[in-house]
Amino acid sequence: MPLSTRLTEYFGVKHPIISAPMALASGGVLAAAVSRAGGLGLIGGGYGDVHWLNEQFEAAGNQSVGCGFITWSLRKNPSLLDDVLSRRPKCLFLSFDDPEPFASLSHAQGIPVICQIQTVKDAARAIEVGAEVIVAQGSEAGGHGEKRSTFTLVPEVADLIAAKSADTILCAAGGVADGRGIAAALMLGADGVVVGSRFWASAEALVHPRMHQAAIAADGDDTVRSRVMDIVRAIEWPERFTARVLRNSFIDKWHGNEANLHTHIADEARRWRQAWTDGDVTVANTFVGEAVGLIHTIQPVQEIIEQLTNEAERIIRDHAKGI
Amino acid sequence: MPLSTRLTEYFGVKHPIISAPMALASGGVLAAAVSRAGGLGLIGGGYGDVHWLNEQFEAAGNQSVGCGFITWSLRKNPSLLDDVLSRRPKCLFLSFDDPEPFASLSHAQGIPVICQIQTVKDAARAIEVGAEVIVAQGSEAGGHGEKRSTFTLVPEVADLIAAKSADTILCAAGGVADGRGIAAALMLGADGVVVGSRFWASAEALVHPRMHQAAIAADGDDTVRSRVMDIVRAIEWPERFTARVLRNSFIDKWHGNEANLHTHIADEARRWRQAWTDGDVTVANTFVGEAVGLIHTIQPVQEIIEQLTNEAERIIRDHAKGI
Repeated sequence: MPLSTRLTEYFGVKHPIISAPMALASGGVLAAAVSRAGGLGLIGGGYGDVHWLNEQFEAAGNQSVGCGFITWSLRKNPSLLDDVLSRRPKCLFLSFDDPEPFASLSHAQGIPVICQIQTVKDAARAIEVGAEVIVAQGSEAGGHGEKRSTFTLVPEVADLIAAKSADTILCAAGGVADGRGIAAALMLGADGVVVGSRFWASAEALVHPRMHQAAIAADGDDTVRSRVMDIVRAIEWPERFTARVLRNSFIDKWHGNEANLHTHIADEARRWRQAWTDGDVTVANTFVGEAVGLIHTIQPVQEIIEQLTNEAERIIRDHAKGI
Repeated sequence: MPLSTRLTEYFGVKHPIISAPMALASGGVLAAAVSRAGGLGLIGGGYGDVHWLNEQFEAAGNQSVGCGFITWSLRKNPSLLDDVLSRRPKCLFLSFDDPEPFASLSHAQGIPVICQIQTVKDAARAIEVGAEVIVAQGSEAGGHGEKRSTFTLVPEVADLIAAKSADTILCAAGGVADGRGIAAALMLGADGVVVGSRFWASAEALVHPRMHQAAIAADGDDTVRSRVMDIVRAIEWPERFTARVLRNSFIDKWHGNEANLHTHIADEARRWRQAWTDGDVTVANTFVGEAVGLIHTIQPVQEIIEQLTNEAERIIRDHAKGI
């Protein structure tokens, strides 16, 4: 019998699993597959390319999916929000900056807001803006994030919610890639999970096959949080956020040596972009979390969700025996 | 009914809880209280002061306790190990360097070895030296550690153990301060937990009362990993390890500015040591993990263990209902 939680009840979905709105990787096909398999699929709004976003909503077809934004980037191009809200997404997912005025604009259209946060202080702000769901994202997550860890951030935010806003739903993000992670997140006080790397490693994700192979070959010791990729892409992330990627020779050369990278930026940016296109993983970076060490196959989303939920249910049942 | 695991069976204890052998804080009174309450209590061998260690074993009285060492420090003064092994501790706990030859010396005396590790690579080495227990320590832990997080390191090491050495017992360390953390650690594949900060915040720990109060007032956003405290104490930790402490004005001044600290070292070291003695938490550092945000009281060990285990059992039972 499926794991029923406040998250599944609120969104009317079968499983307490949301797919992370990963920039570039989370297109409409992935989001629709997650929703079809009983989760809540999200398109990654990323850095706000309106044509790409329109294509991805088309690709999702008539499956009900949500959409996520990098909030500081959305602020530079706020009209994108009107486009997306007019499509009546299942939810708006905001991360990496103050959620207003976007949370209010979404609520005005009757669309629920999910705020992903990285600190307890951020969580208090998400409660203030009336987020229906708070996602506590730990540092183990792939891509952008901050320093707090899933294991302590989730229960601390659960306590804050219990004290200040008991109806707010809580999800854990960062490190959840199998049934053990789902079961653990629920024990820590979450109502569900946001899964990134495991869906990135799906047949439906928009990922170069060589990056998939690099991830399969890696273990969890092989990732690092860095700014190097943002420097070469000329994306001005706020100081507090870094991105977790697989280490490679490019990172080993420039991580901790960023000042020097700036003096070689034209050549190195060109080299990185070409490598991204070619899937050259020795130069371009593979955006995955520490959970990469738990991922050994590229599979269709439907299979992944079945395995994760069956494993979580079995683990919880087994541990309850005899106590 | 208590949580029975491979850890409780192996050591013949009631609860799957080991107290972290925290340098300076984990004396004989704390270790004995943990063992008396049904856990496995450890004395912190720290930087190897033989007189202090002898006092602490005396203070533990006839309770059966183990002893932990900072392995690279023990290597500088290996005769300490003979002293400790001659007391027939319940186990030898080794962390922060290659475990040999100490693991073999302990095994030769019939004393089980617990290896705390911070990476998957370390875990493979712990299996190689025949550790009876591997402790996977995540970065959220207080005091010294490394970068991997509990949430992903534990299941990844569980998989390694399943593949290479199925009888090896696994514990989670880093972030476990309440029943939620114990339940989550078990779901991730651990047979038990190593608890640091929560026992540091006990009546029996050797901690200045002002540091206890600073910890109670802090939340989990208030800690940082740094080398500043090791620089002012002139303790030469290997490069890969930093220590998690509460931020304060001293850390804010010198963290990221370590080269400059070296030029003011005599004065700043004197100032830090005096503050440590006085419990001046604006200068000396309070060694706690991210779980400090889950700790709101200083209590006797017996109460802490009862609360943690009752909560863990209740949470697991509650989540199993209806699946």
